[in-house]
Amino acid sequence: MTDTGSAQHPLPTGPLDALTDVPGLRVGHAQRVGDGALTGTTVVLTGEGGATAAVDVRGGGPGTKETDALDPRNLVQHVEAVVLSGGSAFGLASASGVMAWLEEAGRGFRVGPDPAQVVPVVPAAALFDLGRGGDWRARPDAGLGREAAEAAARTDVGAPVAQGNVGAGTGAVVGGVKGGVGTASVVLPSGTTVAALAVVNAAGSVVEPRTGALYGQLCEGLVEIPEPGRHRAAQETLAAARQESAKRQASSVQPLNTTLAVVATDAALNRAQAHKLAGTAHDGLARAVRPVHLLNDGDTVFALATGDRPLPEGDLFGNPALPVAGALNEILAAGADVLTRAVVKAVLAAKGVDGEGGVFPSYSDLYGD
Amino acid sequence: MTDTGSAQHPLPTGPLDALTDVPGLRVGHAQRVGDGALTGTTVVLTGEGGATAAVDVRGGGPGTKETDALDPRNLVQHVEAVVLSGGSAFGLASASGVMAWLEEAGRGFRVGPDPAQVVPVVPAAALFDLGRGGDWRARPDAGLGREAAEAAARTDVGAPVAQGNVGAGTGAVVGGVKGGVGTASVVLPSGTTVAALAVVNAAGSVVEPRTGALYGQLCEGLVEIPEPGRHRAAQETLAAARQESAKRQASSVQPLNTTLAVVATDAALNRAQAHKLAGTAHDGLARAVRPVHLLNDGDTVFALATGDRPLPEGDLFGNPALPVAGALNEILAAGADVLTRAVVKAVLAAKGVDGEGGVFPSYSDLYGD
Repeated sequence: MTDTGSAQHPLPTGPLDALTDVPGLRVGHAQRVGDGALTGTTVVLTGEGGATAAVDVRGGGPGTKETDALDPRNLVQHVEAVVLSGGSAFGLASASGVMAWLEEAGRGFRVGPDPAQVVPVVPAAALFDLGRGGDWRARPDAGLGREAAEAAARTDVGAPVAQGNVGAGTGAVVGGVKGGVGTASVVLPSGTTVAALAVVNAAGSVVEPRTGALYGQLCEGLVEIPEPGRHRAAQETLAAARQESAKRQASSVQPLNTTLAVVATDAALNRAQAHKLAGTAHDGLARAVRPVHLLNDGDTVFALATGDRPLPEGDLFGNPALPVAGALNEILAAGADVLTRAVVKAVLAAKGVDGEGGVFPSYSDLYGD
Repeated sequence: MTDTGSAQHPLPTGPLDALTDVPGLRVGHAQRVGDGALTGTTVVLTGEGGATAAVDVRGGGPGTKETDALDPRNLVQHVEAVVLSGGSAFGLASASGVMAWLEEAGRGFRVGPDPAQVVPVVPAAALFDLGRGGDWRARPDAGLGREAAEAAARTDVGAPVAQGNVGAGTGAVVGGVKGGVGTASVVLPSGTTVAALAVVNAAGSVVEPRTGALYGQLCEGLVEIPEPGRHRAAQETLAAARQESAKRQASSVQPLNTTLAVVATDAALNRAQAHKLAGTAHDGLARAVRPVHLLNDGDTVFALATGDRPLPEGDLFGNPALPVAGALNEILAAGADVLTRAVVKAVLAAKGVDGEGGVFPSYSDLYGD
């Protein structure tokens, strides 16, 4: 079998170290900041014709749309976009704007003889950022979703992806520390790319509390332990910020642990294989966020497989009936690893916010770059 | 809401730091070592009347029995034993011996007017250790399952649990390093106990390859990095052992990543809550084993809730309709954490084996105590 344990650790990143290293995928962000708003929407757009898609929902408090259509037993084979949004379940409305945009482009699931007769299946998941900007009712709507889709369409294929306080990460907070969008990619020895985009909005637990190090880096053996005095000062600063946030907006001290992600590959996965990829990617979340998948988590991972590359040969156990199982295993392992790294990059890219809805220092504010 | 993120980290362990800190649970091991055998079976026995049980199978190559009966929608409410066994799917036969033992005791799901008319529902999962002792056909059978049940019944309630090369961990190997049984427990501030027992049989990935540290300890912020010279020497020793194992028994170099576990609590969880606990406990595996949940993994976690303690009050979001959600969240988070620690303890407790089926040094052999 292919040993996925250690031989190829660490793998090289793709040219952009981003989701857009998977050819054909584009990412667009749109956000509302100010006048009580601190929220946004991120759209991952596939090439025309869509990608094989799957989802695995592990959080106990998810807010999702069109996830049942992704069950491998069900009808729809491909999707053309996935939406990650702020605004809790209200923010799922942003997917309607993406649907409208796709329909105008004649893209979607064909349901009639006229090529314009399409229903775009746009799976979406939301994270909780209500009140983070000060106005409880400032949420992404269909218009913002359309903006994000247009932003994605405007980018070149293979364009870099903005990280930090953008799109669905605009209002994201991780236990008082500013969260956001992060993305990463790896290239397997076979040439297959596996990439992830994460929107990190968890309850304080990307930071290991004894040391101040990021869980996602600790688990990598990349042990950069903050100096103890700095960690104590960071804890004090953060406690004060939380108190101040509580004064400004009670909601901001009741965080929800939602991390949303898209994991993608150019490999030709079928829908069941993509579903397995979405599931094992949650292991990458588990390594970067702690605790995770609880009742107040909406943790949801989508998988997209563009199908450009056949799964390379790579059997398991020397068993000829499993010609690609070893190759799939490598993709599964990489999906978890790259998602851990996307979470770390999200936290490191985020910028601190001091606004109507609260004070959310960034990890860099607290611990330096 | 109850902040499960950091305030109570780390939690105190139970008196034994073992599964048997959950009152009523007993653990019995039986094994066969020598004459080509290196395998065994572990039984977790509940008190009379059983415990609420659930299971979450995340591995892509599971070997299980009576797991469908644990679906919260199905009939059976309680089980009296859970079996973890070596022997791959053949080893599931050991559960038959446990059934026979329970039937003789009149324990099981009552299906007729006579109290002796019981069908003991004994969920079981198996790990792959075929050939580890040299004889491909030396596997646990019903007799060994009965032995393990009798061993469990002979122990006092609250007895310590043997770890390392015992029971289902007898033939367990983690990527060339000797695996085994480990157990751990924590006591929540409410007094609720959450405990885990793991049988670790993974493909090389409990050890972070750059440093030689255990993933499960790295993730805890307990950063004990082996001295680089020692790590290099360990890698050389391990490579030589793998080569020697390949000569003695080809099967021993085709490892399967199965980690089996039981997570238990004295809290009164319903079956759906227990199912959620089994699911989130997999996050603890993800932190200690890497990669995990792949196609050649049989990773399976059972949850047992003895029901002695009502779920303590602990709302989420100040929402009175969620009176125990905060308390459940604490149990879920603890279940993952304690399972990580059980995996670490399994690896640290294991003793090296040099036998017909291969050379499997222990982590302590390689890195010292």
